[in-house]
Amino acid sequence: MTEPADTADGMVYLVGAGPGDPELLTVKAKRLLENGDVVLHDKLSGPNILDQIDADRLEDVGTRGHGDTTPQSYVNERMVELAREGKTVVRLKGGDPTVFGRGGEEMRYLADHGVPFEVVPAITSAIAGPEVAGIPVTDRNHASTVSIVTGHEDPEKAESAVDWEALANTGGTIVVLMGVTRLPDYTNSLVDAGLAPETPVAMVERATWPDQQVVTGTLDSIVGAADDAGIEPPAITVIGEVAGTRDTALEFLATTYE
Amino acid sequence: MTEPADTADGMVYLVGAGPGDPELLTVKAKRLLENGDVVLHDKLSGPNILDQIDADRLEDVGTRGHGDTTPQSYVNERMVELAREGKTVVRLKGGDPTVFGRGGEEMRYLADHGVPFEVVPAITSAIAGPEVAGIPVTDRNHASTVSIVTGHEDPEKAESAVDWEALANTGGTIVVLMGVTRLPDYTNSLVDAGLAPETPVAMVERATWPDQQVVTGTLDSIVGAADDAGIEPPAITVIGEVAGTRDTALEFLATTYE
Repeated sequence: MTEPADTADGMVYLVGAGPGDPELLTVKAKRLLENGDVVLHDKLSGPNILDQIDADRLEDVGTRGHGDTTPQSYVNERMVELAREGKTVVRLKGGDPTVFGRGGEEMRYLADHGVPFEVVPAITSAIAGPEVAGIPVTDRNHASTVSIVTGHEDPEKAESAVDWEALANTGGTIVVLMGVTRLPDYTNSLVDAGLAPETPVAMVERATWPDQQVVTGTLDSIVGAADDAGIEPPAITVIGEVAGTRDTALEFLATTYE
Repeated sequence: MTEPADTADGMVYLVGAGPGDPELLTVKAKRLLENGDVVLHDKLSGPNILDQIDADRLEDVGTRGHGDTTPQSYVNERMVELAREGKTVVRLKGGDPTVFGRGGEEMRYLADHGVPFEVVPAITSAIAGPEVAGIPVTDRNHASTVSIVTGHEDPEKAESAVDWEALANTGGTIVVLMGVTRLPDYTNSLVDAGLAPETPVAMVERATWPDQQVVTGTLDSIVGAADDAGIEPPAITVIGEVAGTRDTALEFLATTYE
């Protein structure tokens, strides 16, 4: 089942870039980005992070001409190919590598092909996005659970794999990653599942990027508010009582992002 | 409602230390720890992180003599006091500051007392713990949701604030932070709520610390397996199909922790 690697030296690091601010890279990610032979990156790594890497070590596997997405199979094969050439490969993924990043698939592919790898955790924008906007994802009084889901589901699946009713019933905070396009769908689903239309909601576009934008509202009003503000992907949506606490924090919240 | 700070210079940074490996600090956290006037830390920041900070800038607000926990009110007041002396205060919290870290309460307290503050996100062990053990918290085939809950609930509340039945119904991954003491309770609750007793479970003790320990089992067997392995706090528990994928990854997973 597993084929041994052709060289003993090749190695793949599945590295998370975090939400986008280069200062929110981990010390380890920064070291690997400085020293790796090749950096295979997608488009969510943040422009200010990619700017710091020599262009001749960068390989974009996130988009191709005309905005097509590179198939996952190409990324998998390219990682193995480079590792077998003896390269130290940094597979750089926006956010954390295993939070809706196909990191799990890449781990299994590498293991199945006998390529040594290491996973380097990172900050997910699901948590950092709300908090740099003044919103804690949990709160002793408001939320004993935080659930992270993707708004961008597999288009090959007919039904939503996300059980919005169960999420509504947790009573906790819900954070939707890649949640712009289907915002009207899931806000409706959550109200249908019993959440109050007045439940606070905030959206954070390009969290920790220099042009971060935040918009607030409720399950009932956020679609209009997001339209008015011109919210575009990438953005996260945070739903629950905690989203209503931003105003308290805002006056004294120092941020370099907005 | 808000009183102005006595000095214009004081500032509080609510900084997450991440799971414990000093290389998993963010670049920003490392800079602030090097330059802050005072570091108010708790006991979950990891010994190897605290070792790198000059002792005369460290103030332990996590434990007092005889293992008593410092009241939250003391921590709140101390942050304000130091900021009003014009100090740059780093409030260092294990993991991420707003994932069950009372970061939200501290933000509100600072805002209510007119003290400027910034939140510096960090890696939560809820995500990093599983992944350094070879377990992705989400997976396109197995888990469209990851829910993070605390096993250490407010002792003043009579009933569990966590709705285990709703969590079971999400069909996604469940990660329990501080989940050692109540392991028998919540594994039972999840089976009662309809999860199969064969559902894979893994526990990661001291994730990314030099003495990290991982134990695997099922909802039915993990209590015994954790006892046999001598799992002690701090540890996270990851529940769901993804926990069963560790064995595939393990042969080629490079790790500095186990």
